[in-house]
Amino acid sequence: MKYYASDNNSGAHPDVLKAVLAANEGNVGSYGSDPYTRKAEDLFKQMFGADTRAYFVFLGTAANVLALKASLKPHEGVICASCGHINTDECGAIESVGRKIFPVPHQNGKIRPSDCAEYFRHDAGAHRVLPRIVSITQSTELGILYSNDEVRALSEFCREHKLYLHMDGARIANAAAALGQDFRAITKDLGVDIMSFGGTKNGLMFGEAVLVFNPALAQDFDFYRKQGMQLGSKMRYISAQFITYLESGLWLKNATQANAMAKLLAEKMQAMPGVKITTPVQVNAVFARVPEQAAQKLLRDFSIAMWDEGPDATEPLVKGPELRFMTSFNTTREDIEELAAALSKAL
Amino acid sequence: MKYYASDNNSGAHPDVLKAVLAANEGNVGSYGSDPYTRKAEDLFKQMFGADTRAYFVFLGTAANVLALKASLKPHEGVICASCGHINTDECGAIESVGRKIFPVPHQNGKIRPSDCAEYFRHDAGAHRVLPRIVSITQSTELGILYSNDEVRALSEFCREHKLYLHMDGARIANAAAALGQDFRAITKDLGVDIMSFGGTKNGLMFGEAVLVFNPALAQDFDFYRKQGMQLGSKMRYISAQFITYLESGLWLKNATQANAMAKLLAEKMQAMPGVKITTPVQVNAVFARVPEQAAQKLLRDFSIAMWDEGPDATEPLVKGPELRFMTSFNTTREDIEELAAALSKAL
Amino acid sequence: MKYYASDNNSGAHPDVLKAVLAANEGNVGSYGSDPYTRKAEDLFKQMFGADTRAYFVFLGTAANVLALKASLKPHEGVICASCGHINTDECGAIESVGRKIFPVPHQNGKIRPSDCAEYFRHDAGAHRVLPRIVSITQSTELGILYSNDEVRALSEFCREHKLYLHMDGARIANAAAALGQDFRAITKDLGVDIMSFGGTKNGLMFGEAVLVFNPALAQDFDFYRKQGMQLGSKMRYISAQFITYLESGLWLKNATQANAMAKLLAEKMQAMPGVKITTPVQVNAVFARVPEQAAQKLLRDFSIAMWDEGPDATEPLVKGPELRFMTSFNTTREDIEELAAALSKAL
Amino acid sequence: MKYYASDNNSGAHPDVLKAVLAANEGNVGSYGSDPYTRKAEDLFKQMFGADTRAYFVFLGTAANVLALKASLKPHEGVICASCGHINTDECGAIESVGRKIFPVPHQNGKIRPSDCAEYFRHDAGAHRVLPRIVSITQSTELGILYSNDEVRALSEFCREHKLYLHMDGARIANAAAALGQDFRAITKDLGVDIMSFGGTKNGLMFGEAVLVFNPALAQDFDFYRKQGMQLGSKMRYISAQFITYLESGLWLKNATQANAMAKLLAEKMQAMPGVKITTPVQVNAVFARVPEQAAQKLLRDFSIAMWDEGPDATEPLVKGPELRFMTSFNTTREDIEELAAALSKAL
Repeated sequence: MKYYASDNNSGAHPDVLKAVLAANEGNVGSYGSDPYTRKAEDLFKQMFGADTRAYFVFLGTAANVLALKASLKPHEGVICASCGHINTDECGAIESVGRKIFPVPHQNGKIRPSDCAEYFRHDAGAHRVLPRIVSITQSTELGILYSNDEVRALSEFCREHKLYLHMDGARIANAAAALGQDFRAITKDLGVDIMSFGGTKNGLMFGEAVLVFNPALAQDFDFYRKQGMQLGSKMRYISAQFITYLESGLWLKNATQANAMAKLLAEKMQAMPGVKITTPVQVNAVFARVPEQAAQKLLRDFSIAMWDEGPDATEPLVKGPELRFMTSFNTTREDIEELAAALSKAL
Repeated sequence: MKYYASDNNSGAHPDVLKAVLAANEGNVGSYGSDPYTRKAEDLFKQMFGADTRAYFVFLGTAANVLALKASLKPHEGVICASCGHINTDECGAIESVGRKIFPVPHQNGKIRPSDCAEYFRHDAGAHRVLPRIVSITQSTELGILYSNDEVRALSEFCREHKLYLHMDGARIANAAAALGQDFRAITKDLGVDIMSFGGTKNGLMFGEAVLVFNPALAQDFDFYRKQGMQLGSKMRYISAQFITYLESGLWLKNATQANAMAKLLAEKMQAMPGVKITTPVQVNAVFARVPEQAAQKLLRDFSIAMWDEGPDATEPLVKGPELRFMTSFNTTREDIEELAAALSKAL
Repeated sequence: MKYYASDNNSGAHPDVLKAVLAANEGNVGSYGSDPYTRKAEDLFKQMFGADTRAYFVFLGTAANVLALKASLKPHEGVICASCGHINTDECGAIESVGRKIFPVPHQNGKIRPSDCAEYFRHDAGAHRVLPRIVSITQSTELGILYSNDEVRALSEFCREHKLYLHMDGARIANAAAALGQDFRAITKDLGVDIMSFGGTKNGLMFGEAVLVFNPALAQDFDFYRKQGMQLGSKMRYISAQFITYLESGLWLKNATQANAMAKLLAEKMQAMPGVKITTPVQVNAVFARVPEQAAQKLLRDFSIAMWDEGPDATEPLVKGPELRFMTSFNTTREDIEELAAALSKAL
Repeated sequence: MKYYASDNNSGAHPDVLKAVLAANEGNVGSYGSDPYTRKAEDLFKQMFGADTRAYFVFLGTAANVLALKASLKPHEGVICASCGHINTDECGAIESVGRKIFPVPHQNGKIRPSDCAEYFRHDAGAHRVLPRIVSITQSTELGILYSNDEVRALSEFCREHKLYLHMDGARIANAAAALGQDFRAITKDLGVDIMSFGGTKNGLMFGEAVLVFNPALAQDFDFYRKQGMQLGSKMRYISAQFITYLESGLWLKNATQANAMAKLLAEKMQAMPGVKITTPVQVNAVFARVPEQAAQKLLRDFSIAMWDEGPDATEPLVKGPELRFMTSFNTTREDIEELAAALSKAL
């Protein structure tokens, strides 16, 4: 079986494992009071400014939930795209901590200020949850990029309505690589207050970071992380991965490769009659509708996610399921050629 | 100031107060172990069948929240119209108990099986909240009635997908009166599993009941009510109101009057140029778009709710706000004439 | 059956019902925007100072839960006597909103600063919930009074440790009557930040108030009340009861009578061989251990609460259950004589 | 700095890292659908019986919280020692998911049926949370072992009162090694229904397992794990560690070494005048009271946890803090000699 169902089908990059091995020497303080964690926290400060606080957690769902819980009182809620990971794929984790999601329509996973406007028409007093944060995903769940202008428009809208802006950066490296900019330029500098900074989908074994740019939101974060079951006792193993990932430029190398392989796959698929690519290919995902029979054949040897929730799900030109092909840092040109050949054959 | 903002601007019906006074004699068991509560519970059994359990609570939001909490495990959710009271006007009470709402598009507050279908396309394993109940409001938040066939279609959909069906009956008396049927015929007999049975909006001082038709959902309800801060110590004062309300036919008399007055108001408004009634008038609400200046004048002497969330909110024919006029059991013909005259004058 | 199981076995005082009837006239604003509520809120300001905010709710459990939720972040907890109502008799309502209780040993329901001290020995960082409020019950669940000095000692301890002080005043009127002081002198003036101000147990039909003396705790209370399912639509019926209760001195008359009747009962029981009064009788409760057979006989005609959780539960001098006899505003001298006679006969 | 503050100051055992490296080859299914996870799950079935379900999570707090959430309805609670990790050191995580803890007195962290009995005296109806599970820690937070008879007595008590029995096995390997028995003999075979099976404190990088012996409790566990933010995407890195840990006997080798080093330390300390060992040394912890000045000196070079919550905290024979010394799989005889020498010198 070959895996294109998710970018976490791949293992960890060898350099990451080397860093983990190196961090294994000796005894150190637990629960984050170790030199690796201090260094990794400092690296984030260097990248994003001295006010930045980095909190390491185990996985992306936790990064999102803790970031939002830290930003919201019990009667406040989060606006996001209806297809947002926090709304659809975290098994109600946000609601399980008592917070409301306001899902809004989207364009390939992106939302605009006008999509959020309906929640600001009336003052309904205490009868309604107050939207207090907007959460966007960069790159989106449908593989699309927000431009800097689009993020800035949202952050201005947020300032105007006294909202925070959260970015789910599960694939922030893929976004930065595709946009050709550094992390800070596409996050904090655009007005993001707090973000989930992903690593697992781009070559780490496990581990994500919540980055808090707005100091008000860091006040009680240590407690939220512990209560939220995300305070690792041997934290050095997350921190050490991030040190290598950030210092060596591994993040860029990995993301560039993954993005390039998706582009390559898309080029090959565009030439195949009967296949319809359903969303622009901007990072490491290809969404495509494939004829029913060809899909069945392909899925015998390849693990690929059924999607069918894209914008043209209701009236497809191609009669068949929409599939999501994810590439990863370790996807090779040979892999793509093999996959494309298999698809061609199946058609 | 004259009040048409809500059907709870009115007080209690005099017969209800008489019942409360009569129930004041002597000491009785507390927390529901009193003869009034037993009698009221029995009345509901007579009306809905011996398996029915009635749980008295203080208010409608509580009836909804407890009914849904009793029906849903932590990883299960409720499908409802996006304009549903539980989604918009209960300050996130459902989410505050950790449960997810799946809002779906609606037609004047009504939903159909096809509106719910998107949640049953894929099996997403443990990644997604499982819809386990559909909640509908009869009559809807936009003053519209479900037909029996429409409710039955939903309950069949629910059976097919192993879902429960909840009815928010904050205005169930207005619905029954308008449909010309008894309570059971429009609820349990159509496949409703659990409902919020309203009283306050139709002439009670306070108090609602959760009616559980599906015995599986009653198992722990006593605990949910107590933990949910709705177990009244002097419960007789709710029960006694319901006894009179149900036994004397007061519910029908009150609802019939309220409905008739809304109809009368609508007739008068239909004749007014520049006013556009935006949804069919079927119970005790009139939604109408009124020219901006006329609305301003009218709102000086009349308390009326701003709505502007109806189906034509985006492209109104009339430039002006959509207002919601609610009538009540104590609205008189003279009241409506006065209101209509004031609106005419304001135009 | 005669009822001494609880002070909410009794109905409402006739003056309270008169007030409710009088408040029934005409339509008014709902959800608290009515003249009765404004007046009742003002009465509390006059009594406790202009900064005081009063929030009417339906029942005591709700008053406690909302007061504590408003005072505590998710990682903060409440210290109270292990026998405190919030710890034992609210079906986990505090925990159901995600907050931790730190139960401490008590003396007839009272706690001292030294009982709380164990939670302030170490700084455990983010591993432990931070105690942020102390909750005491006046009069206690075991019918005992805090002296002003005792409350002041606790409030000083709270200031020193950056804690708030909450008072559960379900029977605050009985306490004030017994102490011969006004409400303010035994609450706010002693450093209480927020309190549950009871009414139902002293002659109201239903209804309690959360009084917020510390303005910081009122910030979002409107939302907490609505989300907590305690925002009554026809709030005037609670407010009108409180107006009469406070303005006419009814609270004092009722509490004085209830307290006197408990004293009378205690006097009679002290003379009965084989009966042991287990806690000092200071308000409207008598706790007494009664021989097994006599208890059985008595309980045929009288509803009385089994307690058996008092301080000498482990080694009673009298072999038999500890019973709790509660008197109420409508308990008469004849009632007590009848009860005492029945007990004598049962012995 | 030398670390004896916790058994998670140490890194991972080299064999564990080898297993992680070996698991890095190629792409596999994510979220647990990989061959490593299947194999690790099977190993647990072989050890504990075919009905056993193993759910891998990231850390011990999560194992405890998810195990208890899966066992408790919203109105049910858990009985545990007041010093239990779930009560004191998980930042209210249990309460944050809405469940109540009933803390009971303990003997060096152990509880007996009689300690739990107070919660079963009365039926309080819906007013009280129902205890539904007892949670014990083996070995306890104070380094003590339950005998098999003691666990069996608790499990019989649980059966009798319709309670489940949970075991927090953060140090279950140390317990098994000290008792000279296999895992099954000291858990499932004694009537444990569900347990947290620790690994991190005994040589893993990270990762614990929830083992469900009672099939009823596994019903929705997949959802609880995902919603509880513990479903790792690259789960193979936890599973691979457990495979080596269990198959090679590493668990026993590591735990035996840690236990032996604690015994050695205790022997040396017993000979030191002025030092008082406060609890029997049965696994890998030594609790000892040390004179104030000596403690200060020692803490300059050694990281050791302040405890001072042991049974004789109130009346110590030695004037000075109680310290907790934890040994680990990588503690050597030389380490202990160095530590003992430093303490001797400090005295």
